[in-house]
Amino acid sequence: MARQSLQPSPEPADYPFTHRLRTRFAETDAMGIIHHAAYLPYLEEARVEYLRAIGHPYDSVRAGDAATGGDGDGGRDFAVLEVSVQYRRPLHFDEEVDVALLIGAVTGTTFQIAYLLSVGGTPRATAVTVHGCVDGRGRPTRLPAWVRDLGST
Amino acid sequence: MARQSLQPSPEPADYPFTHRLRTRFAETDAMGIIHHAAYLPYLEEARVEYLRAIGHPYDSVRAGDAATGGDGDGGRDFAVLEVSVQYRRPLHFDEEVDVALLIGAVTGTTFQIAYLLSVGGTPRATAVTVHGCVDGRGRPTRLPAWVRDLGST
Amino acid sequence: MARQSLQPSPEPADYPFTHRLRTRFAETDAMGIIHHAAYLPYLEEARVEYLRAIGHPYDSVRAGDAATGGDGDGGRDFAVLEVSVQYRRPLHFDEEVDVALLIGAVTGTTFQIAYLLSVGGTPRATAVTVHGCVDGRGRPTRLPAWVRDLGST
Amino acid sequence: MARQSLQPSPEPADYPFTHRLRTRFAETDAMGIIHHAAYLPYLEEARVEYLRAIGHPYDSVRAGDAATGGDGDGGRDFAVLEVSVQYRRPLHFDEEVDVALLIGAVTGTTFQIAYLLSVGGTPRATAVTVHGCVDGRGRPTRLPAWVRDLGST
Repeated sequence: MARQSLQPSPEPADYPFTHRLRTRFAETDAMGIIHHAAYLPYLEEARVEYLRAIGHPYDSVRAGDAATGGDGDGGRDFAVLEVSVQYRRPLHFDEEVDVALLIGAVTGTTFQIAYLLSVGGTPRATAVTVHGCVDGRGRPTRLPAWVRDLGST
Repeated sequence: MARQSLQPSPEPADYPFTHRLRTRFAETDAMGIIHHAAYLPYLEEARVEYLRAIGHPYDSVRAGDAATGGDGDGGRDFAVLEVSVQYRRPLHFDEEVDVALLIGAVTGTTFQIAYLLSVGGTPRATAVTVHGCVDGRGRPTRLPAWVRDLGST
Repeated sequence: MARQSLQPSPEPADYPFTHRLRTRFAETDAMGIIHHAAYLPYLEEARVEYLRAIGHPYDSVRAGDAATGGDGDGGRDFAVLEVSVQYRRPLHFDEEVDVALLIGAVTGTTFQIAYLLSVGGTPRATAVTVHGCVDGRGRPTRLPAWVRDLGST
Repeated sequence: MARQSLQPSPEPADYPFTHRLRTRFAETDAMGIIHHAAYLPYLEEARVEYLRAIGHPYDSVRAGDAATGGDGDGGRDFAVLEVSVQYRRPLHFDEEVDVALLIGAVTGTTFQIAYLLSVGGTPRATAVTVHGCVDGRGRPTRLPAWVRDLGST
């Protein structure tokens, strides 16, 4: 995967934001653990909570609300261009998972997010997603200024 | 992701096995495309069909049927240790997707699979999964001989 | 559930259309069976195949293609108003499921579908869905004529 | 559906327990709303939180912890025998949903739960699930005494 450049740290303290969620029984599989595909919605839920926390709720981004980052010219989606997950130890039903995340590698058109999933301080998985910005018709477009600014933090 | 070493080719002809599936409406999202998390079950479905095609149905592997690869000492699961997906162009509802796959990088305890998802010959995504072998209690164990043999092909 | 009136038969021979699908490992849960929520996409997949079989592919219905049933005035969705499932015996990983269906109780604005899920002729579940027609903005609208005609069959 | 007898009230005040959750983007579909199949995990998540609230966490029930209801003779699962959902108004991405529930119709071997899903006090859906008790091998068995006692409340 050529574009992906972030290396997720296994240390919770290295991440500026953490979202806690609880695994669902519907997400278990016949191995008695959380199915590996269920982790992607966990990452997404944490992204959505992060955007809310920094004042840019994702539904406003999608609606093109100028006040929250549409640059005044319509809605935006942060399409997922790449994802990778490294499963270290299984997650089980009813566990409370801390999904920590960090934005990095911001360019004019893409950004990356590194994730650490842990339970009670013990790492369970790390992940990276790479995102591009698309307009309401699904065409690639420049990132809103507030996203580009996250890169200089 | 340290372990992952395969580079999936964008050429369908480079893969020895292909499974065709059709996207479901339940797998779409509000962007009007197939949600990125839905690709992981597509990869899994193709793996399962590949194992069946080479005479090792996955439910027999899991049940520890000696004839199909349990080495006579109990059931096995091929746990997912890593996954990465590169989304090139979106999939849409009701499209027929060819999921081509190739096994490689087989060691005594892990193997990797490269995937190409295409529609009508046009690449939509590539992916890699890394697998380890676990016994019925979830403990890591050596790969069955028939899997190790796939590495010398 | 007031509107639902169909009583699904446990006899495969009572249904005019059957779609076969295979359960996925991702759809299992920690009880070692197919999770009950996974049945709803099975019903949906069978509906989509039925619409294709009678010459009205659902993506054309949604796109408002006049030739396939939009009555020439825009796209339609068959929103799910109600669903009920009666689970008789569990489904397991890798089973081939025959999803039989029958349309009934067609009115000017709603229709119902009865389903029988069976494996090797043995019933596993029955279900009923109730559908209404909505236009591209999600507003209730009359059913296309070809759907109303199904009610007189 | 013969067994189902509860009629879910559209009044939040009629329910003794409510669990709030937030819809996920992964649960939306191409109609721009939450896919109807996603409601079943919502009901399940609310059940799990209710069991925790009354002192019988579902993972302990499953593990057969005598202190939390296994009657001292092994783990139990509350298998879903029937489910029905009546969709009144759509749910959208990022909405906070109050899932209220009420246990009723408790017999020696089954119980039912009625649900009301609402957002900001406005009903969006009602539902009923019917459950039976199974032991670790999936065989039907009597309900734990504490569940039967819920019926006399």
